[in-house]
Amino acid sequence: MADLTPLAQLGEFGLISRLRQGLTQTQPSTVLGIGDDAAILAPAAGQELVVSTDMLVEGVHFDLSFSPLRHLGYKAVAVNVSDIAAMLALPTQLLVALSLPPRFTVEAVEELYAGIRLACDAYGVDLVGGDTTSSRGGLVISITVVGQVPAGRAVRRSGGRPTDILCVSGDLGAAYLGLQVLEREKQAFLADPDTQPELENYNYVVQRQLRPEARLDLVHELRELGAHPTSLIDISDGLASEVLHLCAASGTGARVFSEFLPLANPTLEAAAEFNLDPVMCALNGGEDYELLFTLPVADHAKIKNHPDITVIGHLTEKSDLVNLVLKSGQAVPLRAQGWGHF
Amino acid sequence: MADLTPLAQLGEFGLISRLRQGLTQTQPSTVLGIGDDAAILAPAAGQELVVSTDMLVEGVHFDLSFSPLRHLGYKAVAVNVSDIAAMLALPTQLLVALSLPPRFTVEAVEELYAGIRLACDAYGVDLVGGDTTSSRGGLVISITVVGQVPAGRAVRRSGGRPTDILCVSGDLGAAYLGLQVLEREKQAFLADPDTQPELENYNYVVQRQLRPEARLDLVHELRELGAHPTSLIDISDGLASEVLHLCAASGTGARVFSEFLPLANPTLEAAAEFNLDPVMCALNGGEDYELLFTLPVADHAKIKNHPDITVIGHLTEKSDLVNLVLKSGQAVPLRAQGWGHF
Repeated sequence: MADLTPLAQLGEFGLISRLRQGLTQTQPSTVLGIGDDAAILAPAAGQELVVSTDMLVEGVHFDLSFSPLRHLGYKAVAVNVSDIAAMLALPTQLLVALSLPPRFTVEAVEELYAGIRLACDAYGVDLVGGDTTSSRGGLVISITVVGQVPAGRAVRRSGGRPTDILCVSGDLGAAYLGLQVLEREKQAFLADPDTQPELENYNYVVQRQLRPEARLDLVHELRELGAHPTSLIDISDGLASEVLHLCAASGTGARVFSEFLPLANPTLEAAAEFNLDPVMCALNGGEDYELLFTLPVADHAKIKNHPDITVIGHLTEKSDLVNLVLKSGQAVPLRAQGWGHF
Repeated sequence: MADLTPLAQLGEFGLISRLRQGLTQTQPSTVLGIGDDAAILAPAAGQELVVSTDMLVEGVHFDLSFSPLRHLGYKAVAVNVSDIAAMLALPTQLLVALSLPPRFTVEAVEELYAGIRLACDAYGVDLVGGDTTSSRGGLVISITVVGQVPAGRAVRRSGGRPTDILCVSGDLGAAYLGLQVLEREKQAFLADPDTQPELENYNYVVQRQLRPEARLDLVHELRELGAHPTSLIDISDGLASEVLHLCAASGTGARVFSEFLPLANPTLEAAAEFNLDPVMCALNGGEDYELLFTLPVADHAKIKNHPDITVIGHLTEKSDLVNLVLKSGQAVPLRAQGWGHF
């Protein structure tokens, strides 16, 4: 503990200078990165820009008692990059604003930044700007990400048409169960600090909670397959909420088949242990950061053998409403529980 | 008070939907605004983009006991737009992320947004995205602003050369004195809640603190005058700090003449009342959001009759260091006290 450096010792400019060390830029569109009043970008001809911002707040979006700072930094970038993937675009630049509690040491901020940089490297994004300030409350991480997409090719939520097939990437519900595991171990630790956390059997679901990935791989693969999504959204608040958003924006209804929802074995096992319905975890759990998209029926052949894309239903006329079709064949209205921060 | 609506009653999506009402877009480069995973921008041909982010934290950057929410919203936009002006660029789009304490009502958020919108209108910026979340601590406002500038014409901090003249817009030190007035009235109120705040005689300095303006007018005027700043920075942390930043980036020294510093009469009066040296207020007070820039000597004639630009000194060789020249002719090293959040 003797080697830890209080933030006050370094000051804001000292901290920024330390965090800037060794930053590299790989995007040709980055003209000027960190260090001036603003970054300068020169997007390639024929490209449009997409830009999105997301804020993560301690005590609301993460719990530092079980979120390692490096993972948290990585996740903060991943969830923002996921919004760019959700436009079928590729991220290029990132800006990070941090509000740091006084209890934070320089080393803690460096850990957080190490995760941010790791994610920037993984997603090929240049860190070009930011702001660092103190906090009277908890840690706040606000990230803005810029991406590029060929002009006119960004995919919105609003382009879905009745009969389009409804697809998701990866599997759902795991991040929510990972959170249940972490919360349980935290309670056990609070009750008896000598308890060792039992996370070994839950690697997959815990990893999905602590270090999700943005599905940029799917952006590349859909382009390569020549599959043109008509609408696209990322799954941050739970599948049900996102299907409802997509249908509202597209002016359609939908039928989602519960038995088609992709659930990984570790998710099923953890759900059983926690006495939770895995379908409800997939529908309302959230934080999966998978992609939900629609394709014209004609594109079905292009994705049907893709091991990581599952067709979970199809869009319908708006008047048919948004329904979940149970195994029994019964259709029930799809409802979002969401997160309800407030 | 009966008409106030708790945030929980509306929920996140309800709040966003309410805040989006009546938003208009005037920038031709805005293809898609709020409502999807990301905004879509199509910058005009031949333009580069500038992008900057700034975070304002309750208890660090503002005090809600004397900052009206509408002014605060306006100021949050202005300080970000100021960073775009500091590149000699014009702002085009804005994203706002808010972390809202549970005590906030819907009406309070609407007041804050009213100020944000007012500033967007004043500066011709489209509000194209954001994030709204709850807070366990105080209010946090994180804004990212995008601007445009003809390719290659963004002005950095680093282009100043020895003999360039050093100019500032407007006057300095007033915002700091406004803060002193507000802090004094707050203490008086806390000591005796029946006290009426005495702000009438301090309109100018209080206004400069609560509702600063970004100097976009100067961006237009410098372009029209054909004056080409070699370096440019906005004055957020106090003149001394910014001169040092500019000189460090440009690899120069500077001579700043204390008797040339532009000080408004209300600033001089308030400084006298608070027993503060007005020169120190200008050098270290901060939050003026004026522009500090350098011009080649040849451009001096273009700005010398401008009523709102003051030449305060010139750049020198780096080996001459950065000095403040006092009325007596004595040169003392210029030092920044800065804000020292941590």
